[in-house]
Amino acid sequence: MKTGMLGICGILAAAVVATSAIGDGHADKAIEAAVKARQSQMTLYSFNLGILGGMAKGDIEYDADAATAAARNLAALSQLDQSRLWPQGSDNVALGADKTAALPAIWETGSTAGEKGMALASAAIDLEQVAGDGLDALQGAMGAVGKSCGSCHESYRQKNE
Amino acid sequence: MKTGMLGICGILAAAVVATSAIGDGHADKAIEAAVKARQSQMTLYSFNLGILGGMAKGDIEYDADAATAAARNLAALSQLDQSRLWPQGSDNVALGADKTAALPAIWETGSTAGEKGMALASAAIDLEQVAGDGLDALQGAMGAVGKSCGSCHESYRQKNE
Repeated sequence: MKTGMLGICGILAAAVVATSAIGDGHADKAIEAAVKARQSQMTLYSFNLGILGGMAKGDIEYDADAATAAARNLAALSQLDQSRLWPQGSDNVALGADKTAALPAIWETGSTAGEKGMALASAAIDLEQVAGDGLDALQGAMGAVGKSCGSCHESYRQKNE
Repeated sequence: MKTGMLGICGILAAAVVATSAIGDGHADKAIEAAVKARQSQMTLYSFNLGILGGMAKGDIEYDADAATAAARNLAALSQLDQSRLWPQGSDNVALGADKTAALPAIWETGSTAGEKGMALASAAIDLEQVAGDGLDALQGAMGAVGKSCGSCHESYRQKNE
C-alpha cells in the first residue's frame, strides 16, 4: 500500500519533469502515451467495478471468487505507480476535450488529486479484504470505493453536458 | 504470484461461461468490454516496457527508482486476474481484424496462451527483483520479459502485413 501511495504522490514530481520537455514533438508523443495509459488504467478500473457494482446492485449473481478476483484486481490497479501518467500539459485545455477529460485543476497548487487517488487505493484494499465474505460485506465496502471515484471525478474530470 | 497464475489459467473457465451467452446483444457488449479491457492491459504493459526498454537500450538514462517502479507495475499488471478478459467469441475472425488481433488459436485445444502468460508473470517478477540494481542487471532480466511477449505475439497475435 505504501508503494501505491508514493506512486500517486509522484504525480507532482512527474509534472515537473514533463514541463521542461513541453513543446517538441517528442514531448507530444510522450504526453499522448501517458494519456492513453491513464485512460487504460481507468478502463481497467471500470471493468472490474462493473463486476463488483453489478453484484452489489443485484444485476449479477454474487459469486465470492469472482468478487474477490475483481476486488483484488482493483486494489492492485489502484496501487500502480502513476507518476508518469499525469505529465503537466496533459489537461483538457492543453490537449483539447476530445483527447482528455482531465481538468487543469489536477495540476494546480492545492490540488487534492493525489489524496483522492490514495482514498481509492485505501477503499479498494478494504474491499479486497471482504469481497468474498458475502453480498452484504461487498455492498458495505463498495460505498467508500464509489465515493472515492465520484469525488475525484466531481473535482477533476470534465463534465459531460 | 500464485494468484496471478490462477487468473491466467482462468481463461478457459471464462471461455466456457461466455459461450452460453453468445448471440444476444448483452453478450456483444460484454465481449466488447472484455476486448477493450485486455487492450488496456496491453497498453499498460507497453507503457511500462517503454520505460524499461528505453533504459535497457540506452535511449533513456538509467534510473534505479524509475526502473523499479516500472518493473513493479509490470509485475503487478501481469498478475492481474484475466479470467474475464478473454471470452470465447472474442477472436479476430468472430469480431473482425479491426476490433482485435487475437487469433482463434488462443481458444483452441492445446493452446499455450495460458502458459505464455505465466511466463510473462514469472519474468516480470524476476525483473522487479533486480531492476534497481543497475543497468547490467536490468538488461540481463529484460531478455526473458521480451521473449515471453514475443513468444505469445508470434503464436497468438495477428501479424501486420
